[in-house]
Amino acid sequence: MSESHQTTEATEAGDFAAWMRATGARTEAALDAGLPAAQTVPCTLHEAMRYAVLGGGKRVRPLLVHAAGEVAGAAPEACDAAASAVEMIHAYSLVHDDMPCMDDDDLRRGRPTVHKAYDEATALLVGDALQTQAFVVLAESALLASLDAAARLRLVAELARASGSVGMAGGQAIDLQHVGLAMSLEELEGMHRMKTGALLRASVRMGACCGAVDEAGLAALDRYAAAVGLAFQVVDDILDVTADTATLGKTAGKDAANDKPTYVSLMGLEPARQLAQQLRATAHEALAVFGARARRLGELADLIVLRSN
Amino acid sequence: MSESHQTTEATEAGDFAAWMRATGARTEAALDAGLPAAQTVPCTLHEAMRYAVLGGGKRVRPLLVHAAGEVAGAAPEACDAAASAVEMIHAYSLVHDDMPCMDDDDLRRGRPTVHKAYDEATALLVGDALQTQAFVVLAESALLASLDAAARLRLVAELARASGSVGMAGGQAIDLQHVGLAMSLEELEGMHRMKTGALLRASVRMGACCGAVDEAGLAALDRYAAAVGLAFQVVDDILDVTADTATLGKTAGKDAANDKPTYVSLMGLEPARQLAQQLRATAHEALAVFGARARRLGELADLIVLRSN
Repeated sequence: MSESHQTTEATEAGDFAAWMRATGARTEAALDAGLPAAQTVPCTLHEAMRYAVLGGGKRVRPLLVHAAGEVAGAAPEACDAAASAVEMIHAYSLVHDDMPCMDDDDLRRGRPTVHKAYDEATALLVGDALQTQAFVVLAESALLASLDAAARLRLVAELARASGSVGMAGGQAIDLQHVGLAMSLEELEGMHRMKTGALLRASVRMGACCGAVDEAGLAALDRYAAAVGLAFQVVDDILDVTADTATLGKTAGKDAANDKPTYVSLMGLEPARQLAQQLRATAHEALAVFGARARRLGELADLIVLRSN
Repeated sequence: MSESHQTTEATEAGDFAAWMRATGARTEAALDAGLPAAQTVPCTLHEAMRYAVLGGGKRVRPLLVHAAGEVAGAAPEACDAAASAVEMIHAYSLVHDDMPCMDDDDLRRGRPTVHKAYDEATALLVGDALQTQAFVVLAESALLASLDAAARLRLVAELARASGSVGMAGGQAIDLQHVGLAMSLEELEGMHRMKTGALLRASVRMGACCGAVDEAGLAALDRYAAAVGLAFQVVDDILDVTADTATLGKTAGKDAANDKPTYVSLMGLEPARQLAQQLRATAHEALAVFGARARRLGELADLIVLRSN
């Protein structure tokens, strides 16, 4: 199952960086094409939607879609559509989370948040319309021409299920309810499984839906996604206390300032780091069954754990 | 094409009232079943989502879905799913529109608005999650078992297209931009075509999608929906100045207080009333091609123009 390693590690790292850049560029192009032009009425709303989505972000979810698509033999164009839909949902959640009635944050991706750059009403509508636009893309994008209606409907189901009240939005509700309250490690994990884990898992599953994966393969991808999703949050919590605002592109130390329970506050910094490494190993184990096809997913697990912002 | 009238007008009116009650009851049941239980975690979010949707509202959009479904020979169960999805989108838009950064209203359907009964963060998440839930219903509901995946995907496309930045949310953005500013009658009509017209039109088209209507029929339904959608807003503007808060179940005189352009402020009360009657006639003309099958759509056009709240 393992491919012969003819390249040095340095070349492989360079290759992964090139894949990330290329995938990021095609994601940006798909997002640009999937959003109404800034000249389309209402212009301010569309300009603000584009401000919220384009030209920033790590694009972790699009990268996961494409990497899982490689496992499933998916057409890259189909993955572009799925990736842009997931990223629009992610972007909408950031716009709403940053609003004064939620986390009240001024900085996102190194720029003023939408309600700061525009106003609160615009931010509310930008988030609302970005969520809708994700489903417009899945229902209408010509990039998905290689998929039949049943597969497209599965994409809608995966994205909707992951982002609603038993997924991302529900996790956010639990998060808000626990500001200043004690939380067990299990409760914290359950909250993050919904708040960030569900959409990361959906990214992997949607990439798989763009091609073909059997039930056993889908179960393995779920195990990978569960580990990576949790690792993502553990590392986020670590970075919130170890990185500075400039590196993060968002306000550092926010969780402690808001008295939010985190993996670091519940476990301590070093055990949290160990947990992240364990989850990275679990992710790689889940991928073993796919061999070389899952190389990008493995590299993304490494990236998520080893990132500095 | 016309059916023989064996019943008196009084009996027909009673029959329509009975159909409205029955359709309202099955819509309520479908909404209840389509929303997560209040005991499902996160409980407060789900309780608030149910508060926002259940036990109130005129259910105009669900009635339009079912009435158009009758024209198209649709299964009533399929219409239930489409109707509850449209109503969830409508309910989400009301929750967000009522928030302090938008219309800042305390009363909706005769009860405290969601951000008053709960808090702003919950209202934001309730709206977000209700929008998502509409797409969960279209993607997953067993009520749509009679439709193939292509038809279900058309429902997703119709609903998403109508509610996003070139539909409902876009109309709301234009509305906000024009508070206190002059607006021509054309601009007002364009705004309302997006803000309320698009979702009313989608209701009609989704009912048709649940069954079968040819292109000419769909065009006739579009003409009907355009007239009814505009009439709905003209009558809303009339009621805002002629009805009291108790009758409306929402704050009366709000548009004038907010210095918003309305049909009444631009045309005067009597010309607005005449316009509503003209639009009612246009709606009936568009239905002529369908004969008796379109009886409920005709009755709904009458209801929308003649309503008192």
